[in-house]
Amino acid sequence: MSKKIDIPFFDGDDFHTAQNVKKMSDGKSLDDLDRYEWLLTLNKLAGEQVKKNGCIIACSALKEKYRDILKSGIENNIKWILLNGSFEQVIERLGNRKDHFMPTSLLRSQFETFEDPIDALKIDIALSRKEIIKTINNELVNRSEFGLLGLGVMGKSLSRNLANSGFKISIFNRHLKGVEEDIAINFKNEYKELDSALAFDDFEDFVNSIQKPRKIMLMVNAGKTVDVVIERLIPYLSKDDVIVDGGNSHYKDTERRIKYLKNEGIYFLGVGISGGEEGALRGPSIMPGGNKNSYRLIQPFLEKIAAKDKNKQPCCSYIGGDGSGHFVKMIHNGIEYAEMQLLAEVYTLFRSLGKVPDEIANILETWKAASNSYLLEITIEILRKKEKNGWIIDSILDKAGNKGTGNWATIAAAELGTPSSMIASALFARHLSSFKEEREKAEGVYGENERSPKLSKEELLKAYHLSRIINHHQGFKLLLQASNAYNWDLNLAEIARIWINGCIIRSSLMEDLVIILKQADTILLNKEIVKRVKYLRPSLNNVVSQALLSQMEIPTLSEAVNYLNGYTNGRSSANLIQAQRDYFGAHTYQKINDATGKFYHTNWNKLSHD
Amino acid sequence: MSKKIDIPFFDGDDFHTAQNVKKMSDGKSLDDLDRYEWLLTLNKLAGEQVKKNGCIIACSALKEKYRDILKSGIENNIKWILLNGSFEQVIERLGNRKDHFMPTSLLRSQFETFEDPIDALKIDIALSRKEIIKTINNELVNRSEFGLLGLGVMGKSLSRNLANSGFKISIFNRHLKGVEEDIAINFKNEYKELDSALAFDDFEDFVNSIQKPRKIMLMVNAGKTVDVVIERLIPYLSKDDVIVDGGNSHYKDTERRIKYLKNEGIYFLGVGISGGEEGALRGPSIMPGGNKNSYRLIQPFLEKIAAKDKNKQPCCSYIGGDGSGHFVKMIHNGIEYAEMQLLAEVYTLFRSLGKVPDEIANILETWKAASNSYLLEITIEILRKKEKNGWIIDSILDKAGNKGTGNWATIAAAELGTPSSMIASALFARHLSSFKEEREKAEGVYGENERSPKLSKEELLKAYHLSRIINHHQGFKLLLQASNAYNWDLNLAEIARIWINGCIIRSSLMEDLVIILKQADTILLNKEIVKRVKYLRPSLNNVVSQALLSQMEIPTLSEAVNYLNGYTNGRSSANLIQAQRDYFGAHTYQKINDATGKFYHTNWNKLSHD
Repeated sequence: MSKKIDIPFFDGDDFHTAQNVKKMSDGKSLDDLDRYEWLLTLNKLAGEQVKKNGCIIACSALKEKYRDILKSGIENNIKWILLNGSFEQVIERLGNRKDHFMPTSLLRSQFETFEDPIDALKIDIALSRKEIIKTINNELVNRSEFGLLGLGVMGKSLSRNLANSGFKISIFNRHLKGVEEDIAINFKNEYKELDSALAFDDFEDFVNSIQKPRKIMLMVNAGKTVDVVIERLIPYLSKDDVIVDGGNSHYKDTERRIKYLKNEGIYFLGVGISGGEEGALRGPSIMPGGNKNSYRLIQPFLEKIAAKDKNKQPCCSYIGGDGSGHFVKMIHNGIEYAEMQLLAEVYTLFRSLGKVPDEIANILETWKAASNSYLLEITIEILRKKEKNGWIIDSILDKAGNKGTGNWATIAAAELGTPSSMIASALFARHLSSFKEEREKAEGVYGENERSPKLSKEELLKAYHLSRIINHHQGFKLLLQASNAYNWDLNLAEIARIWINGCIIRSSLMEDLVIILKQADTILLNKEIVKRVKYLRPSLNNVVSQALLSQMEIPTLSEAVNYLNGYTNGRSSANLIQAQRDYFGAHTYQKINDATGKFYHTNWNKLSHD
Repeated sequence: MSKKIDIPFFDGDDFHTAQNVKKMSDGKSLDDLDRYEWLLTLNKLAGEQVKKNGCIIACSALKEKYRDILKSGIENNIKWILLNGSFEQVIERLGNRKDHFMPTSLLRSQFETFEDPIDALKIDIALSRKEIIKTINNELVNRSEFGLLGLGVMGKSLSRNLANSGFKISIFNRHLKGVEEDIAINFKNEYKELDSALAFDDFEDFVNSIQKPRKIMLMVNAGKTVDVVIERLIPYLSKDDVIVDGGNSHYKDTERRIKYLKNEGIYFLGVGISGGEEGALRGPSIMPGGNKNSYRLIQPFLEKIAAKDKNKQPCCSYIGGDGSGHFVKMIHNGIEYAEMQLLAEVYTLFRSLGKVPDEIANILETWKAASNSYLLEITIEILRKKEKNGWIIDSILDKAGNKGTGNWATIAAAELGTPSSMIASALFARHLSSFKEEREKAEGVYGENERSPKLSKEELLKAYHLSRIINHHQGFKLLLQASNAYNWDLNLAEIARIWINGCIIRSSLMEDLVIILKQADTILLNKEIVKRVKYLRPSLNNVVSQALLSQMEIPTLSEAVNYLNGYTNGRSSANLIQAQRDYFGAHTYQKINDATGKFYHTNWNKLSHD
């Protein structure tokens, strides 16, 4: 093999220390400590060779943690090949081996120690040497490492990102006569980095072009298409292949697909990807969920293409089991809905104060110091963009798109019993905007609302910043509730960390939250946050109060105030609601001073005789 | 038969006019006009006999609309028996008939005209006369007219209501050893009106005790129980039997069950019932949905037990196909959530003004003139109710129950793209209340909110009333959206009508809406409403503005303001959101001055070269 592909070969056994050799010669097994130095030596050797043309190393690498040491720092460059034989086959060959320090008596303990690698190419040692070399060559040299299916905006950007990261990939786009023809091959020809990529519009050829166990990422429309594509793939897949859904699928669909494919021996992972077109190309934030073992197979790819945080760590981290990756992405988008709506409300307030877009952009520019975010940055750029007739923003129809993940996040909040009122209010603001013609009719009947609220830009910044804190509190609270309900054991601080770069809701606040969420799960109870909230609160109260007096539409700022007021109110008016429910439906209620939690019923009706 | 059960028999043919007899003797078929007088005569005859002991009338009643005339005014007292024979059987018997004016030549047109009645007991004329009489006796005299399954709070009240309305019913409750034993028989023995009821805890006996086609209403817990009960019933049911689900089932479950049972030849209807325990007993509001023909079978029962409006019409009206009955009930409950929350917010505002419960009750008493409702009435009674240590309301734990229909209504709003923000805010207020311990902790950290807003009770009434108008606008809007999306053709005015009595959200406003919704579907655009809104609006703005400055939790009042402000705003800030979406996701946007609806994309990034 070494001769055939012209890279050096090393036998791991040659690198054992004299002590290890003696120990084995004495018929004793090596323990983990004995092996540690040796593994480090091999890792170092591999690292040096990777910088050149690479090499082949033969060695025992029985446990997952040994292999972790061996691949450390070169995860993206390593290929495992398991020469697979039964105890009987191997002991026979060992018996025929001459001049080797390891006695056959140690083989039993090696077989016992062995942990089957899920990411290795497995080759039956019963094959001839020629056949083995041919198989390795076919699988590893001619085939690609990773398949990407679906070359829409996001699929194309991710393909280029993977190729730019040095991965050999297969890309696929369906053939749809007259509509989608030769998409993959044309795309490959368009970009230099795709020179070594293999392009397909046939499912079977695509699948066969990928090394086993195959890693195939779907970048197709969420919904039925995912199921259709899975059905098309199944006939060509092998056991332990991994399908990765990188779209915005609903987490319950993902869970259904995980179960379905498990029966077929195929792993399925739901991976949230945020960053839009540009993020996908230059480094998105990635939220993988599903079976943890199978995640290891795609981890090197995802971590390499992900955005990096300030410590150069990838903005990609295993989220949890089931559909948790897609769930977390859905909540990311929910938070995004509210962040966008807050900026829209701020914009509308500044307009009511008579500011033109450039002036608003200039003010928002000064906000970067206190409350910077990607969305703030792009809003500034948007407000400055002009075309011949003036600001583009003024010509855009005020009907917001309102499908997908924002809806789902609101629905999930309702299902989980979590008051994610800011996401919901942002969603409903989009819904209401879509009734444009009816709003115009209503404005005709009711007259224009425009009155100018008495507000300063300093107060507005404070109101905006506090609302963002509350929005993030609600978003992470929703994650926490889901984590508890579904046993996902989500690491909120780590989720905040992978959201500080690459994704749409990256911000300086998110950077703070990485630290804050390490201390505790509840943002609004954090000491540092409490200080900030107390300082900012009067401004938020005043902004909302003044804006509502002026008949402005500021649902998400208003929800921020109401949530904070409710959250800090130890005694709410829900006692009246419980009384009403007990009155008409005999739903019973609990009492404040009865810690037993006993349920009471009152016969409220004065006409009754109870 | 007449002799056996001792009531008179009439042959319909004896009541034809001389003209009709002549026409038939001449071999001509009667047309609808010829039949009209005759049917009226028979209907009058039946009406007179019903007042005595009843009678048997034999007549041709070929079409559904003939039968409608025959039963007019005595719907609850009529039993149809179809003597069912083939053309060959009947023509043979007709040939043997002597001295009758109708020539056999007319039979073919009679068979062609015939519309099969779904609500008739069908008897094969091949049976002997004795057998026929025995069958009729078994089915109609010994069996009950209606079955009710599930004797919880609502099931018991509805059973008594049915019995009090003069129906002979079968009642069933499962046997659960040591937990639910002899429920049905004990319940029957408890109430005089159930003397003629048949009580069971065996599925087969219960089903067999009911006249065919059977009408069985389920009053069991929504969810899996309904499916379990259906499976238990199926083996004993016959084609064209009708199952009615009177619980708060999810409308999508109802639709699934309709389809499932259709395959079994069984009709399934989803019927929303509102009114709580007392309403169920004295007359609830009933919202039946499903197949319209099968609804005719249960219509007499439901209309008889329903509450009556001011014109004595039943608060029960066929809603539409599929799960529309349960959907409408779900939205009823959504509106109810917001109505309850508004009262809770009003209550909390009065408390912050220093009023004690009795004082608040006295103020609310004066509100009845302007904005009365069942919920206002019970709130007043609740606030006045004392126990030894003071007002009961003060001892009730402020954690509101938050499962079921309110959640579903919010989810449906999100799915339908409708901004039902008041229902959602009321739901989330309940959710937030459930985090009692965390709220107490937060109050400890942030300090108490209590400041006294500057408000008058007159302004509060105006704010409350306007919020209710907006809540109803949103609720009916949601129904309209669902009606359009699902092709239900809902009659909003009729839905308002059946909600003016019997149900939890009955109110003087609802009475106004019956008239308003007859004019148009959109409440806030109605001239009369516009006047009211304009008059009330400054007070709502001021109340919300002041209350938020005082750090009160008033999410649903706030949403009312925000919705109104958004609704009456022809130009919203959604243009910024569209720009943002286009910036990071290339989602494109439309332009205000381009009526073609063309989609535009801008390359916003100043770094790009486009």
